[in-house]
Amino acid sequence: MTTKSKLLYEGKAKKILSHEDVEKVIIEFKDDATAFNAHKKAKFTGKGELNCSITSNIFEILKKNQIPTHFLERLGLQSIVAQKIDIIPIEIVLRNIAYGSLCKQTNIKSGTVLKEPLIDYYLKNDSLNDPLLTLERIKILNIISEKEINLVNNLTLSINKILKEFFFKIELELVDFKLEFGRNLKGEIILGDEFSPDNCRLWDLKSNNVKIKSLDKDLFRNDLGDLIEAYSEINNRINNFMRFNQEL
Amino acid sequence: MTTKSKLLYEGKAKKILSHEDVEKVIIEFKDDATAFNAHKKAKFTGKGELNCSITSNIFEILKKNQIPTHFLERLGLQSIVAQKIDIIPIEIVLRNIAYGSLCKQTNIKSGTVLKEPLIDYYLKNDSLNDPLLTLERIKILNIISEKEINLVNNLTLSINKILKEFFFKIELELVDFKLEFGRNLKGEIILGDEFSPDNCRLWDLKSNNVKIKSLDKDLFRNDLGDLIEAYSEINNRINNFMRFNQEL
Repeated sequence: MTTKSKLLYEGKAKKILSHEDVEKVIIEFKDDATAFNAHKKAKFTGKGELNCSITSNIFEILKKNQIPTHFLERLGLQSIVAQKIDIIPIEIVLRNIAYGSLCKQTNIKSGTVLKEPLIDYYLKNDSLNDPLLTLERIKILNIISEKEINLVNNLTLSINKILKEFFFKIELELVDFKLEFGRNLKGEIILGDEFSPDNCRLWDLKSNNVKIKSLDKDLFRNDLGDLIEAYSEINNRINNFMRFNQEL
Repeated sequence: MTTKSKLLYEGKAKKILSHEDVEKVIIEFKDDATAFNAHKKAKFTGKGELNCSITSNIFEILKKNQIPTHFLERLGLQSIVAQKIDIIPIEIVLRNIAYGSLCKQTNIKSGTVLKEPLIDYYLKNDSLNDPLLTLERIKILNIISEKEINLVNNLTLSINKILKEFFFKIELELVDFKLEFGRNLKGEIILGDEFSPDNCRLWDLKSNNVKIKSLDKDLFRNDLGDLIEAYSEINNRINNFMRFNQEL
């Protein structure tokens, strides 16, 4: 397979390669980590494999819960096979707890548990530094219809419900996460990209420490500790849960 | 009056002074100009008087068109009497044409005539650099109710309709403008602040030049020409129109 695969696109944390089936692509998870719009960069041996494993398991859970995703199967240690999609250039961020950029941009107090999840849309555009979008601005940009954005919104809320409950079972608090959606060859809106500690915040509920114990990319962003150790911990908890809960 | 007046608040372009009637305040228009969150500053002799005159006339027009405003009467060359209000810390920006910050923040092409007016909300907070707010973020900030924001939205659209038509009659294109609303002592939402070329964009339709001829604060922002000459031109056109259209 790999001998025939052509590099279609290389992002900050993943490569997209061609598949012999034109309706599919191969996604390879890289060891690179970037933060603050790639102003901070590093390489962590093993991160690609961990994110590939976590993403594969999370997408399996979502599929079993009727969420349409691009994920088809795990291919190797660091790669998956996915449906070919046209990514919609909007990053959807859902927050259960106010933290990070939201609290730097507004005067909402860091750590505020939100009464209802907050969904923010950002234009996926590095040179513009991924600006926040209002629904009215999205309408003008003409990159997604009103019907589609409503669908994306509802899917994001459903994903939150499923994953918040799942992570709680393995003693992790799902603080926030970023999603990307795309249109497959049939024009259907499905979840794309990945779901890993690179683009969500997970806090350890096992920790007896009163301080927040981040098990996500904040460790790299803010130089708080060993990223691979944290990602491995999440991967292990997910694998252990999956092993003992085949019915999920 | 002024001997008894106490300074209640001093902003970048105006002072708020006490009035002997506790339900009223005196607003004094300063000659100072600031741009880019006060990173650029200057003084223009005569600007205070011009903005006081323009604001007084525009607020008279709005009042005659059933828009509730804080404006009561012009007091002197640089001052007006207004209802005392609690300003809601949200700046409402309506755009008829995409220009300025919107085009720097998104990939909407500068000069795009919008099919429908775009309304953006910004948190009035200098230290946070007046961040853009989504309706969901406004809800969390808890500074204005949903009913009130709908009212503000509808008032802003009505104001646009009235003033776009008015400015067109005096050969000016109303490109965009910024409003601030507040609650008076009865708790009613009314228009506050000012309406002057300091917080709107007005393009000269008389100009034969194919290039845009700004008659507003862009002259100062981008060092394009004489600010006092432009503001005087707007003030003269408004005064001439008012003199010959008493029925307005």
